Amino acid sequence: MGKRKLETCFSPALYEVDQHAGSIVVIIDILRATSAICTAFENGVVSIIPVAGVAEAKEYKSRGFPVAAERDGFILDFADFGNSPFNFTREKVEGKTIVYSTTNGTGIINMASSAYKIVVGSFLNISALATWLISQEKDTVLFCAGWKNRFNLEDTICAGAIAEKLIATSLYSTICDSTLAALDLWSLAKHDLNRYIDKVAQRTRLRDKGLDDCIDFCLTADFTDKIPVIKNGVLVDNIL
Amino acid sequence: MGKRKLETCFSPALYEVDQHAGSIVVIIDILRATSAICTAFENGVVSIIPVAGVAEAKEYKSRGFPVAAERDGFILDFADFGNSPFNFTREKVEGKTIVYSTTNGTGIINMASSAYKIVVGSFLNISALATWLISQEKDTVLFCAGWKNRFNLEDTICAGAIAEKLIATSLYSTICDSTLAALDLWSLAKHDLNRYIDKVAQRTRLRDKGLDDCIDFCLTADFTDKIPVIKNGVLVDNIL
Repeated sequence: MGKRKLETCFSPALYEVDQHAGSIVVIIDILRATSAICTAFENGVVSIIPVAGVAEAKEYKSRGFPVAAERDGFILDFADFGNSPFNFTREKVEGKTIVYSTTNGTGIINMASSAYKIVVGSFLNISALATWLISQEKDTVLFCAGWKNRFNLEDTICAGAIAEKLIATSLYSTICDSTLAALDLWSLAKHDLNRYIDKVAQRTRLRDKGLDDCIDFCLTADFTDKIPVIKNGVLVDNIL
Repeated sequence: MGKRKLETCFSPALYEVDQHAGSIVVIIDILRATSAICTAFENGVVSIIPVAGVAEAKEYKSRGFPVAAERDGFILDFADFGNSPFNFTREKVEGKTIVYSTTNGTGIINMASSAYKIVVGSFLNISALATWLISQEKDTVLFCAGWKNRFNLEDTICAGAIAEKLIATSLYSTICDSTLAALDLWSLAKHDLNRYIDKVAQRTRLRDKGLDDCIDFCLTADFTDKIPVIKNGVLVDNIL
């Protein structure tokens, strides 16, 4: 085949379902959903069931599943965890199937259901993810989750970091302006990533709620080599 | 009042009508619509009537109006002009009202109709535009027209250039990641703008059709001090 296409999507509102049928879609939502999911797999979770509604999450809870559920930064009263990666410790998740309530995330998973595979990306698994993507002969979409459909910088920067690794192989081509912008923004950010991310809107939102303690961790490269993937609507370890 | 809010919208698909009621909205579509419109006003056009459909454009033509109408880069057979700024010469437009057929543009004008004012921005009128915006005490949205709802680099770069002038006054505040990204991309592009724009997808599309001769012109700062504004659905000179 010719070169694989590499595209970047800055918001669910910009995702083109028909364009991306058959591609690998990498979901990126580093503050904090995809960082938390990567952490849970590193710490031995067996699978994560994403659910959209609070009622559904409660129902799983009543059947004995541990549940992660937050709304606007606050842990729901029946839940076992919030969305911080620091919650998904080995003691809490190893060997378990947990439920993750996320309105945004389940919408994205449904949207990307025409994809060849949907995988979870973050700085925490970036090198393993890039190596795996390169091993596949597929077009790839870096799908930034955004916040309430808005463009956000932190996911864009992470997309740029992934794109840089893929483009370096010469196996990919891109004429997608979003990918070019992500690469350029990453080139500005990478020399002092923590300082760069200090200005993003989501950092301000998390700081206002005292939830910004995990940001430096979320910017750490290669904490894990796990690549969570959606199979039958459930997140599992890609090597299984 | 406190500081004015400055926001940037990367695509019509990301425009939030309710959020921007009462703001000044600057429409940016530099390759080539807003550059062509600025050129027409510099060359003495009296007003420009934006219309959505080909049928409507034809109807105006039959009533004696000069019509600019292109689809996918090709002049429609009944039209007097294509969309290149080079078509809107003084000989052709001075003292006239012309009709501009644009599917994308009319959609954007309707979308932004809750705005305080809708004005047309490009590099060609950037300093006059910035000076005028600063003279108003209004929140401002830089609305990149995109291409088929996609993010594009050239409009983002122009938004960054405008944002730089506004932010420099200390009258504006922004916690909008899109504006921060536009400012950063402009900081990379501004030292050699023509070279930077050489990589954008729209340049490739225009080049493939032999329509890229106007790009250097579209990147020229301050060709005009005209600020086209929508009044009653028609583009007129802002000072009138």
